[in-house]
Amino acid sequence: MAEPINLDHNATTPCLPGVIEAMAPWFGHAANPASPHQIGRKARQALEDARDRIAGRLGAWPDEVVFTSGATESNQSALLGLAPILPGRAPPTLLVSKLEHPSVATPVELLAARGAQVLPLAVNPQGEFETDQWPRLPEGPLLLIAHLAHHGTGAIQPVAELVQRMMELAPGLGRSHTDATQAVGKIRVNFHKLGVDTLAASAHKFNGPAGIGLLLIRRAKPWAPQTVGGGQELGRRGGTPSVALAVGMACALDLAHEQMAIRQAHCLELRQALLNRLWSACGPLEVIGPAEGRGLAHTVLARFTGVKAGLAVMGLDLEGVAASTGSACASGSQRPLPGLELLVADEAHRREVVRLSLGHEQTIADMEEAADRIGRVVCRLRGDRQ
Amino acid sequence: MAEPINLDHNATTPCLPGVIEAMAPWFGHAANPASPHQIGRKARQALEDARDRIAGRLGAWPDEVVFTSGATESNQSALLGLAPILPGRAPPTLLVSKLEHPSVATPVELLAARGAQVLPLAVNPQGEFETDQWPRLPEGPLLLIAHLAHHGTGAIQPVAELVQRMMELAPGLGRSHTDATQAVGKIRVNFHKLGVDTLAASAHKFNGPAGIGLLLIRRAKPWAPQTVGGGQELGRRGGTPSVALAVGMACALDLAHEQMAIRQAHCLELRQALLNRLWSACGPLEVIGPAEGRGLAHTVLARFTGVKAGLAVMGLDLEGVAASTGSACASGSQRPLPGLELLVADEAHRREVVRLSLGHEQTIADMEEAADRIGRVVCRLRGDRQ
Repeated sequence: MAEPINLDHNATTPCLPGVIEAMAPWFGHAANPASPHQIGRKARQALEDARDRIAGRLGAWPDEVVFTSGATESNQSALLGLAPILPGRAPPTLLVSKLEHPSVATPVELLAARGAQVLPLAVNPQGEFETDQWPRLPEGPLLLIAHLAHHGTGAIQPVAELVQRMMELAPGLGRSHTDATQAVGKIRVNFHKLGVDTLAASAHKFNGPAGIGLLLIRRAKPWAPQTVGGGQELGRRGGTPSVALAVGMACALDLAHEQMAIRQAHCLELRQALLNRLWSACGPLEVIGPAEGRGLAHTVLARFTGVKAGLAVMGLDLEGVAASTGSACASGSQRPLPGLELLVADEAHRREVVRLSLGHEQTIADMEEAADRIGRVVCRLRGDRQ
Repeated sequence: MAEPINLDHNATTPCLPGVIEAMAPWFGHAANPASPHQIGRKARQALEDARDRIAGRLGAWPDEVVFTSGATESNQSALLGLAPILPGRAPPTLLVSKLEHPSVATPVELLAARGAQVLPLAVNPQGEFETDQWPRLPEGPLLLIAHLAHHGTGAIQPVAELVQRMMELAPGLGRSHTDATQAVGKIRVNFHKLGVDTLAASAHKFNGPAGIGLLLIRRAKPWAPQTVGGGQELGRRGGTPSVALAVGMACALDLAHEQMAIRQAHCLELRQALLNRLWSACGPLEVIGPAEGRGLAHTVLARFTGVKAGLAVMGLDLEGVAASTGSACASGSQRPLPGLELLVADEAHRREVVRLSLGHEQTIADMEEAADRIGRVVCRLRGDRQ
């Protein structure tokens, strides 16, 4: 079987060798950063250095950075921590689209079950949020929930404008959260400029280790912690933080920022090579999502007319291309992308959508080979045997 | 400054070199174990292999093993997940002692604030649970919460007997959880033989990586998940599991079991060497906890008469010995051990208690040097300048 080409980087990315090297000594160092002795202080110093570097990259203060186990925990903690302390006494209104990842959609469902009203954020046909088409807002507390970059379409969202608009429409009553999992490490993210109250991200999406994420929480804003335990992370998240993983996340984020322009330019070249070759291999191709040049370069949501996506992903797997129909969650899931109905009206068409997400460590040759393999599978499934 | 000697292994232990080596390739493998393609399946295979090995070591079925971020998450998930589905309709009664770690005590407080009644489990003066002295139980659902080995005293608890007794006293109405964080990897633990519904542990306490823990949940027993997200771990814990950390935890547990008898015997020698030398260096010493030979050999809870523990720990730090007054939780905490009042009646005496926890990778020479350093600090603080 051919060496598989990974076009599923939005599910997870490999740790870079430099990141693994940076972590190794801290795995071997027996120290709890909460221990009040030399060995513990050395660990604490490394943890706080990682926190400082991460804060600096993301436009936050170090004391706004909370280490978590990943974006699922961060999103859930953010939403369940913001909801109970929203200003005003009425049940809150959640402004959120159906495009959010399950790690956001699940706590939203929980809050809805507890009485919150859910109103949709308007989305244009390219999957970008509309900043000037808002639903009629009921009086009372509001919680705006909007991802910063979309894992399926690659759309980069106008979160700062949405927050601004919310503050105009509901002065003093609004709070906001952004799931920045697909944005951090890929584009510049500035927590304070976004204006959100909380932000979630995960290291394994930007070549850091799986098992650690971050939650940014606006300084001096009320928020209710979800896991207290021993009172670590200034009482905002219990449990011994992993110094090695925090060092790994900081290292991966530093590398991502140092190389951001180069990686972005390279991913654009890879994208063009992939799309050009796909056009020759599969014929005209519908790309769903933002206009070329507006979204994340490494993400291509493609519709192969007449080809069922589930079969395509399985066929691609056998042919040596890793791709996906939606977000990688529960075991072997082949569920379509949540909210895809907002972008693709025809139900049959929605079942033809495949996500291809490439990595900055890949080459033009990888893209051409992948496109050829995709072409073979697509043609076979269309019955046009070559 | 002298190279510090670590007598704080119950706070955390170093990853063994073999564990770091086992993890490294999985950090570099870009694969989400939920992705339905070759690269993802390879990751899933490694994850499930780790789960199988862990289940086998702990007397559980593989589908009873849930990967979490650590024992704090496991304890909280277990307790908040068991409480709402207890049999019977009355508010539950929690049977739990004050000796539990903050990661257990905090969710217990939360449940108490929601209406649960808390009754104490009886403890003997050595910190061991009494199996035949139970409080008068109100009618209705019961939740028994008992650690398996104590992080401060090293007491090994009769959890199986407690569960048995609960089932006799409240047939059909009782559920049970054990925090086995200090037991797993140190003594043999058999989940099914213990009879508990849930069990929590953390890899970094047995020479595995920080950032991963486990929660065992009895098959086919009701339990309410706390983090759903994308439905990973059979819907019991959301978030992408870290394959590398799971492989590291399985590797550390395998090593711990393969070397258990040797480590236990070596720790007993280390303990004797430490205690003998401490007697010569500091004079008679009160050891709090189980009778010699009954508890965890690597844990010594010692009272140095006339010496404030907070000052001792600071002095020891300067002299090059890492020790602790209690559990390492929030930053630089010097809080006394929770529940110490059950073992040491005199309040002034309680402020003289220091926890020394040694590691199987240490030597007799380390113990003798540590005891000499402790002797110097204790004598200085007692004003007996040598």
